[in-house]
Amino acid sequence: MLSSPLAPGSTIGILGGGQLGRMLALAAARLGLDTLILTPEPEACASRVATRSIVAAYDDMEALKAFSEIADVATFEFENVPARVMELLQMVAVEVAPGPLALATAQDRVDEKTFLNRCGAPTVKFVAVDGVQDIVAGLERLGAPALLKTRREGYDGKGQTWVAGPADAAAAFERIGGKPAILEARAAFVRELSVIAARGWDGDSAFFPLGENHHENGVLRRTLAPAEASDRTIADAKAIAARILDGLDYVGVMGVELFELEDGSLLVNEIAPRVHNSGHWTLDGCEVDQFEQHIRAVAGWPLGPTHALARVEMENLLGAEIDAWPALAGEANARLWHYGKGEARPGRKMGHVNRLSPLT
Amino acid sequence: MLSSPLAPGSTIGILGGGQLGRMLALAAARLGLDTLILTPEPEACASRVATRSIVAAYDDMEALKAFSEIADVATFEFENVPARVMELLQMVAVEVAPGPLALATAQDRVDEKTFLNRCGAPTVKFVAVDGVQDIVAGLERLGAPALLKTRREGYDGKGQTWVAGPADAAAAFERIGGKPAILEARAAFVRELSVIAARGWDGDSAFFPLGENHHENGVLRRTLAPAEASDRTIADAKAIAARILDGLDYVGVMGVELFELEDGSLLVNEIAPRVHNSGHWTLDGCEVDQFEQHIRAVAGWPLGPTHALARVEMENLLGAEIDAWPALAGEANARLWHYGKGEARPGRKMGHVNRLSPLT
Repeated sequence: MLSSPLAPGSTIGILGGGQLGRMLALAAARLGLDTLILTPEPEACASRVATRSIVAAYDDMEALKAFSEIADVATFEFENVPARVMELLQMVAVEVAPGPLALATAQDRVDEKTFLNRCGAPTVKFVAVDGVQDIVAGLERLGAPALLKTRREGYDGKGQTWVAGPADAAAAFERIGGKPAILEARAAFVRELSVIAARGWDGDSAFFPLGENHHENGVLRRTLAPAEASDRTIADAKAIAARILDGLDYVGVMGVELFELEDGSLLVNEIAPRVHNSGHWTLDGCEVDQFEQHIRAVAGWPLGPTHALARVEMENLLGAEIDAWPALAGEANARLWHYGKGEARPGRKMGHVNRLSPLT
Repeated sequence: MLSSPLAPGSTIGILGGGQLGRMLALAAARLGLDTLILTPEPEACASRVATRSIVAAYDDMEALKAFSEIADVATFEFENVPARVMELLQMVAVEVAPGPLALATAQDRVDEKTFLNRCGAPTVKFVAVDGVQDIVAGLERLGAPALLKTRREGYDGKGQTWVAGPADAAAAFERIGGKPAILEARAAFVRELSVIAARGWDGDSAFFPLGENHHENGVLRRTLAPAEASDRTIADAKAIAARILDGLDYVGVMGVELFELEDGSLLVNEIAPRVHNSGHWTLDGCEVDQFEQHIRAVAGWPLGPTHALARVEMENLLGAEIDAWPALAGEANARLWHYGKGEARPGRKMGHVNRLSPLT
């Protein structure tokens, strides 16, 4: 618990060196805060803009010691940092936000959904899976087809597969590598929404307008924000996010992915205990974007305003799509964000573009 | 002359390490461009966010060699960099923007006003001063009181003094250190305006809306933008700025300070061949701010849009005024920019705040 806001000149330690860390570092800089990146990647794009960086494995004890001596508070941009690392940092008296509980909960899909249901955030029905038998039994309870996902890791559609029926159970378990898993009922959703929420050390919370998300091949393709939605849907989404933030005594920005069902009700798909791709629209659509909001929360500063100033369509630039940068840079009302990554591997998130139009 | 835009991953070399360099580095980063700062200051605030930095005097040949090997193009954020340094960089095949001619012209107040008048940008009447006799003769031509300024250096009201009349000539010359100088007629202006202009390698230009500037003790206190002004005044200001940019074959962002006279006509007070304090409002008032605009121009990218999205009052935070950051961070519709400088010496520019309101 920070007792007072970190003064400019303090250092925000960030575990992870990808584009989220890069945009966090840029946000910290406008507030006069330094940043320290810890990443195993020698050419991490966040390190190119951070004040300092350390290249080491996340669980390298020497590196964590050096990190803890410089950082005045620690956060992460990559949710597969071992939760134990955050506990270690707390043990050497570095404040950590979000805390290890939030990180550990979000790292295990069974723990996550169990927590969500307990705090009143509805999800699809699910069962924990340790072997093929659990899948067969689960299909009886949940119906077929159902979605099998590894309990840990996996993102952007990796580590998951549909199970067509009992006859497919063994093959499906093999497709995800035979790892501990979760079997989820199919959600009859009409669209995917997300809410980017933030909570400070003092429990104060703030919520950006909803985004409507469109995926391709399991990867976010575009977000439209503020999403067209009824007042009830907006209120429900914020109420759900608030219950999650409070339930985890959360500090920082969280992305909450939602399914909207035909009757307008909402289920939580998953939570990301960090700034989130579906919140990139806030970079050009809001006074304070999600990255500055996270820095503010983590550093004990007051949360910023969250209302939209423009309507934004955010489009991810994957792999070689980034080669369109000269045209995008010249496109009217389009704001290009280029992450400065070296190699444009297929599907890699290389940048995004925010297309602005007036609020209607 | 750049033949094609610099690709992301290229390095913008910046001479100077102050807040203007810092905000240029942040702007470059969102476009995926790296930055290299050359500064004599070991604790320069720009170096904390740049990809790399070199600490050396501007005319340190070894340092310039290292700088030229990394930078794909060179620019400056501090107009007292020796123009010879920019020429040297050109000689080792580093493109330089703005070019040495613009820098040299802006560094000498007599050369600057001579150039301005030649290209059709009106100024107050003036005479060159090499000794007390020139002041006495000048007062006869220009009337008294008149303003005596050193030809070179001096900013924020330093190196200048009013000459009350012939009897004050000798003392006035002593007050400015007996250096080569310019004597300027008093301008009967009703207010000070500025226009932030940009020009690319291809000659394309763009102009932000006018700012209305209020000074205290010779230092900019606040800018209101877009300034209330007649269509004629706006058109005149842009036409004047365009003549200056074209006359210098200028590449980059320039600040053009103007006096508005009682009859609505404009005189150029001075030009700054760089991003300018009176353009800080664009950081929160425009899609593309003056820093990104400068990076775009210098890197051969298309210039961005310049229309205002909001009305902004920019207020400088000088010296200990920066201590108000916790309140400013919590102020609705205020955007704090903290430069991350160490010591809040009296009068030092430590940050600024942009207060936003809707366009009317």
